[in-house]
Amino acid sequence: MDDLKQRAADLDAADPLSGWRGRFIIPDGLIYLDGNSLGVLPGNVPARVADAVARGWGEQLIRGWNAEGWMDLPRRIGDRIARLIGAAEGSVICADSTSINLAKVLQAALAMVPERQVVLSDTGNFPTDLYVAQGQLGQAGTLKVVAPEDVAAAMTPEVGVLMLTEVDYRSGRLQDMHGLTDRARDLGIVTIWDLAHSAGALPVDLAGAGADFAVGCGYKYLSGGPGAPAFLYVRPELQNRVSSRLTGWMGHAAPFAFDPDYHPAEGIDRFRVGTPPILSMVAMDAALDVWDGVDMQAVRAKSLSLGDLFIACIDRFASAYDLHLASPRDGNHRGSQVSWHCPDGYAVMQALIDRGVIGDFREPDVIRFGFTPLYLSYAEVVKAAAILQDILRRRTWDQPQFHARARVT
Amino acid sequence: MDDLKQRAADLDAADPLSGWRGRFIIPDGLIYLDGNSLGVLPGNVPARVADAVARGWGEQLIRGWNAEGWMDLPRRIGDRIARLIGAAEGSVICADSTSINLAKVLQAALAMVPERQVVLSDTGNFPTDLYVAQGQLGQAGTLKVVAPEDVAAAMTPEVGVLMLTEVDYRSGRLQDMHGLTDRARDLGIVTIWDLAHSAGALPVDLAGAGADFAVGCGYKYLSGGPGAPAFLYVRPELQNRVSSRLTGWMGHAAPFAFDPDYHPAEGIDRFRVGTPPILSMVAMDAALDVWDGVDMQAVRAKSLSLGDLFIACIDRFASAYDLHLASPRDGNHRGSQVSWHCPDGYAVMQALIDRGVIGDFREPDVIRFGFTPLYLSYAEVVKAAAILQDILRRRTWDQPQFHARARVT
Repeated sequence: MDDLKQRAADLDAADPLSGWRGRFIIPDGLIYLDGNSLGVLPGNVPARVADAVARGWGEQLIRGWNAEGWMDLPRRIGDRIARLIGAAEGSVICADSTSINLAKVLQAALAMVPERQVVLSDTGNFPTDLYVAQGQLGQAGTLKVVAPEDVAAAMTPEVGVLMLTEVDYRSGRLQDMHGLTDRARDLGIVTIWDLAHSAGALPVDLAGAGADFAVGCGYKYLSGGPGAPAFLYVRPELQNRVSSRLTGWMGHAAPFAFDPDYHPAEGIDRFRVGTPPILSMVAMDAALDVWDGVDMQAVRAKSLSLGDLFIACIDRFASAYDLHLASPRDGNHRGSQVSWHCPDGYAVMQALIDRGVIGDFREPDVIRFGFTPLYLSYAEVVKAAAILQDILRRRTWDQPQFHARARVT
Repeated sequence: MDDLKQRAADLDAADPLSGWRGRFIIPDGLIYLDGNSLGVLPGNVPARVADAVARGWGEQLIRGWNAEGWMDLPRRIGDRIARLIGAAEGSVICADSTSINLAKVLQAALAMVPERQVVLSDTGNFPTDLYVAQGQLGQAGTLKVVAPEDVAAAMTPEVGVLMLTEVDYRSGRLQDMHGLTDRARDLGIVTIWDLAHSAGALPVDLAGAGADFAVGCGYKYLSGGPGAPAFLYVRPELQNRVSSRLTGWMGHAAPFAFDPDYHPAEGIDRFRVGTPPILSMVAMDAALDVWDGVDMQAVRAKSLSLGDLFIACIDRFASAYDLHLASPRDGNHRGSQVSWHCPDGYAVMQALIDRGVIGDFREPDVIRFGFTPLYLSYAEVVKAAAILQDILRRRTWDQPQFHARARVT
């Protein structure tokens, strides 16, 4: 792979994003290809969280809600995320978990199409999204799940809501947000996009696509920390016409009037429910400092280039070990991750982790690698591939400790 | 008030909980009577959170879900809270916000009584609870809100669910959990108790009372931090027979099998939904260290004694300034807070805060003081009353800066 090593060195030398790596804390010797599961720690986060604990909570106490701006964090963080996903100011809030946010927007969406209680999704959607839809629909509607390539054809007249994840969590396959949203609009279908593997990974253009609703996750590419609060988007024109059935005081027009009747706030704030977990939100807010000034087109270019290089490396030995690319080879159809079907994939991934290359495994046989352009180098990608080749060549994965299943990989 | 000062000194000298104060970080000179809004910072929290950020997230990264036990935090924290609210192990989880948890258990409760979609509550319930019920019932049912003292009489045959907060957020009035739950059971009414102002404030006996469901809050008496994750309880016998419509992967029987169909986990875990905010949960977990070994009977005794002393102090000058006790004088009917109707209450509270005595104001005219026995002394309570008297006597509250409304008090 000497030629690929050289290519990596050239790419690193010319990388316009190379300066960003220093803003993250990356354990020595680790090649982290799992920023699509949990992003690494931005260097400014520890001090910000420590300050929120010791000074914000410890000294300001209840006064922190005003003095520290905690009340407005959901909206302020939302506006910072909005810039990264092509949304207008005031159309995104940071709150709750992705699943809870999906339930909220799904309720709002279903209420818009009372005669068409059919939700269309695809098999590439993350299962929790399907579970949320099953829970919300109950016996009153139907969840229709088709293959990713069959979505357009499945938009039949009974479908009321199209609910898709833009980037397939397993294969990295990219759905066509603009095309499918256009078609949905023509057919009177309300659209919900899950940006879990999109936000911070590639340029998203929610407003341009005319998407009705979106949700996403703070802990992957955005590096907001383990279980970081999630976000949701509502198209500005819809905000005052729809609401969720998850109604709580933070979404009230006047939370501190203690009115016994619920009156939704104007705008996106009506999608807030309870009191937000401030320490986790402060970490999310601090993590977004890193994103100020990031050019998402540059992120996309490097992301694809990293993925292409990794594929080129694995191509050299894939057939010898029965690895089959599970992701689109064409970057235009791919998010920021690349996966392979791999025999004994679970054990192979454990052996990789043992050698300091962290990716993850997804049932039944997928080894998955995420590319985070702000803190990965091309050299690391080539080195990771070489370590994988070594593990396969020497069959070091075939040791009992690599077969023991942990609950999360 | 010299006699009351002496009484306070005697009580402090004999206080079996005085040793606990050192476990908290309390700003110098502050008399904090607002632990019922946001509990003070336990001394062990900063280091625990810093470690979760720098080592757990920063070094373990995705491995933290197993290595740091993050996956099990909701259950582990739940079991620690369970001890404080009279619940069995495995019947409480820590998750989401109080409002979201209330929506979950309300959905489960309403599904148990399909022919009786009437929720009974009282005017002393915190408004967000009423909003949650309004949202969940929609047009399909009715929320019936009566005066607190009329609840028993209002349990008519059409009522399916009784949803109450044990301690009134304004007056501190304590509802009779045992009596009302008994009566509800006899009438086939499902019970939901909100323990926001109970957990950590007084002994709660959920199992003994036979309550069906409960929710509560981590950031008040439990000192879990601003917006700390909340908790929910489901009676063990019900757990596998009910479920909420908020279904997400963390509540699935096998979250990492990525099954496209939702199958609820056995037991309390089915009430989990999305990925929990770990940094906030770590703070909550650390805060609960303080509670290990705390005798809730001793907490209750001191809580009432602090409240009685404060009432005795205010009695000395209440009539001169038109203050009227808004809380039950009899401690048996009171939680851990005492309130007064107070003319210009908002400004009076701001003037108090300016003098280093933090309580809070609740519309329309209530000044409210919470008593947290683990970190308050009797001497502080007498001093706070003297400062209030001074403010009223000198009318120092009547300055423009004390009238400007902030969003949260």
